[in-house]
Amino acid sequence: MQANVFSRDNVSVVVSSQVQNAEQNPQLAAGNLPLTIGIFGGGQLGMMLAQSALRLGFRCVFLEDAPNCPARLYGKVYSSHQLEDFVAAADVFTLEFENTPVETLRWVQGLDGHFGVFPPPLALEYAQDRLKEKNLFTQLGIETVPFLAVENETQLQQACQQLGLPLVLKTSRGGYDGKGQFVIQQADQIAQAWQTLGKAVHEGATPAPLIAEAFIPFTREISIIATRGQTGEIRCYHPAENHHHQGILATTHAPAPNIQHLETQAQNAVKTLMQTLNYVGTLALEFFVSQDQNGNEILLANEFAPRVHNSGHWSIEAAITSQFENHIRAITGLPLGDTDNLQPSIMINVISQAPKIADILAIEGAHYHSYHKSERPNRKIAHITLIPKDQSTLNEKLQTTLAHLPNPFDLLKKD
Amino acid sequence: MQANVFSRDNVSVVVSSQVQNAEQNPQLAAGNLPLTIGIFGGGQLGMMLAQSALRLGFRCVFLEDAPNCPARLYGKVYSSHQLEDFVAAADVFTLEFENTPVETLRWVQGLDGHFGVFPPPLALEYAQDRLKEKNLFTQLGIETVPFLAVENETQLQQACQQLGLPLVLKTSRGGYDGKGQFVIQQADQIAQAWQTLGKAVHEGATPAPLIAEAFIPFTREISIIATRGQTGEIRCYHPAENHHHQGILATTHAPAPNIQHLETQAQNAVKTLMQTLNYVGTLALEFFVSQDQNGNEILLANEFAPRVHNSGHWSIEAAITSQFENHIRAITGLPLGDTDNLQPSIMINVISQAPKIADILAIEGAHYHSYHKSERPNRKIAHITLIPKDQSTLNEKLQTTLAHLPNPFDLLKKD
Repeated sequence: MQANVFSRDNVSVVVSSQVQNAEQNPQLAAGNLPLTIGIFGGGQLGMMLAQSALRLGFRCVFLEDAPNCPARLYGKVYSSHQLEDFVAAADVFTLEFENTPVETLRWVQGLDGHFGVFPPPLALEYAQDRLKEKNLFTQLGIETVPFLAVENETQLQQACQQLGLPLVLKTSRGGYDGKGQFVIQQADQIAQAWQTLGKAVHEGATPAPLIAEAFIPFTREISIIATRGQTGEIRCYHPAENHHHQGILATTHAPAPNIQHLETQAQNAVKTLMQTLNYVGTLALEFFVSQDQNGNEILLANEFAPRVHNSGHWSIEAAITSQFENHIRAITGLPLGDTDNLQPSIMINVISQAPKIADILAIEGAHYHSYHKSERPNRKIAHITLIPKDQSTLNEKLQTTLAHLPNPFDLLKKD
Repeated sequence: MQANVFSRDNVSVVVSSQVQNAEQNPQLAAGNLPLTIGIFGGGQLGMMLAQSALRLGFRCVFLEDAPNCPARLYGKVYSSHQLEDFVAAADVFTLEFENTPVETLRWVQGLDGHFGVFPPPLALEYAQDRLKEKNLFTQLGIETVPFLAVENETQLQQACQQLGLPLVLKTSRGGYDGKGQFVIQQADQIAQAWQTLGKAVHEGATPAPLIAEAFIPFTREISIIATRGQTGEIRCYHPAENHHHQGILATTHAPAPNIQHLETQAQNAVKTLMQTLNYVGTLALEFFVSQDQNGNEILLANEFAPRVHNSGHWSIEAAITSQFENHIRAITGLPLGDTDNLQPSIMINVISQAPKIADILAIEGAHYHSYHKSERPNRKIAHITLIPKDQSTLNEKLQTTLAHLPNPFDLLKKD
């Protein structure tokens, strides 16, 4: 694999030359369009990508082993044993599952006769490894929480001294929705933390150090979603404010209230990240909002998702162009659409159990998105977007919605 | 068939007692929801109904003989030879094709074990016969153009004298998009008009007189779309202004400019019509805007469509709840959604030939809806909705869009 170097602000970041450019693709250069989009993963993100893709005239196929996956209603689903058939059925490739094996994506990328693999596999390589991801943020000048790599218990003890307690110990690979994490509140928990997560270091083919992150107090969590097209054009959505419950996204307020003073910083961070990775498609970058020594709000990057994101679901109803449509536009070489809000909105995840849909739809401006999944603890099975005409009633409508959920979140609890 | 009588403003209208009420349906009364919606017809209207239905958690099946119909991507399609299988596969029924045989719908309605047939077949009986439809308008006090039934050439001559020339002669059954019509400009065209359309009188099982309509000068054409739920709740969209080209809808401006003074009248007409028919679902009522003797604008009802309608496609992006979602909510017994505009919009039909989709999506605020149909003269193959952030650029964006269509309409020509 050859490599070339992108320079930016005294920082050099190595980017694979396998990243495809529109200019290098003779099909796109000739103004041709792909017909069938091959999506790695068939969950609700794949389902909503397909909703946009079909509307624009494309077809979709999916690679997914989960039976009865949400995407099955929108195109043929291939199991991982049918990878070659899946590849033969599509002429451009993307993903909704960020743990798609990078090597598989690179193999597809090396094949002839298609329009490309977007986003570039390199973006997944960073996103799948918290340590690489945080190092990239640092290299790019995107401020993040102080962190250290941890390969053994001694290093963990040193990290606790250097970063202070409390501290969050995380596996650098795998883990989502709060899994694969241990919050060390006191020094006597270090051994237990290492016992719980330490074995993950040597689980993969190559050692993957744990990552110890300083526990920085934050007032709120926001995310910015952006889409980059094959010409390099970038469109940013307004940042959204996210509330989690037991490690799972519960609600998103879009746009985030009182965010104007931080919006340019968030935009610059996501643009730098996308340009560096020669990214094509939609990406989400999450931040903690903390305070500097003078009491001013600052953004600390937490992680990015190289895909459409739960905190952008509101854009289906409340943005001029949704994150899903813009992702499809990007990967097929089409011009991107306006990302501005039509009006403010709140998105609520339906987790574990479905409400009575009639109760939800009786709320003025409520939209229900079923994922056609069975109920199961901690499973996201649907989401609700609120766009009431009278925007001043948004929070009241949120409370009404929560009251109708079988397991309403405790919105005061953030974790 | 039993019949009962609805009284309204000294007008008695006979309505079939076969019309189902939510109260009469033990399934709905028990708070159950249907799972699979059986849609008569699999064209683009069925496709867009399915897009909303799937999002809410329902499945769809279709009865359609056209191969490669647009709805095929959203559920199983049954041919008319498989009617019984289609019926067995669904538990509530609706239609997207207004010429669905009324007898078939009544047969389904008489079967046990489903949630109903919506809209009521009676609504189709009126909509499928221009003469019955116009008589219904008159009975309900909804003003329409002067008309007469014509069963032979002599009656046509009398109608020309009574209504004056020019005059439009139409078959009372069949015909759409300008087909089955003859405009008689001069008396010497009467014989030719009768020769062209007269045979239609005896084509069906029972004689169907032609209908002669006075040619009333009008300044514009509008439509109002409304949805009625199973509780009798009615939600009206703002009236839209429609421009036709060669008898086919070309563009819709929604809301119609300068329509406030006529909106209540349009709402009252559509509400009266729906209440009389005990209608459930979305319906479109079309009007000519003409002038009375004092130069004041008046509405003259032209026809209604007992289904979602091309002049409501804008509502997917530009209304809080689309006409498709509200139809699905209505037929499944769910509460209706807000019909207000998020912002003004223009819808443009793509007829015969597709544009370069990249040209269209480069227009800020443009959305493209492919029907997955092959190109054919006078065939609607897609539509475009414009919702630019800067609303003052709507008409400019319309012109840009038209310039990119392979066959731009001459918008000055109305017919």
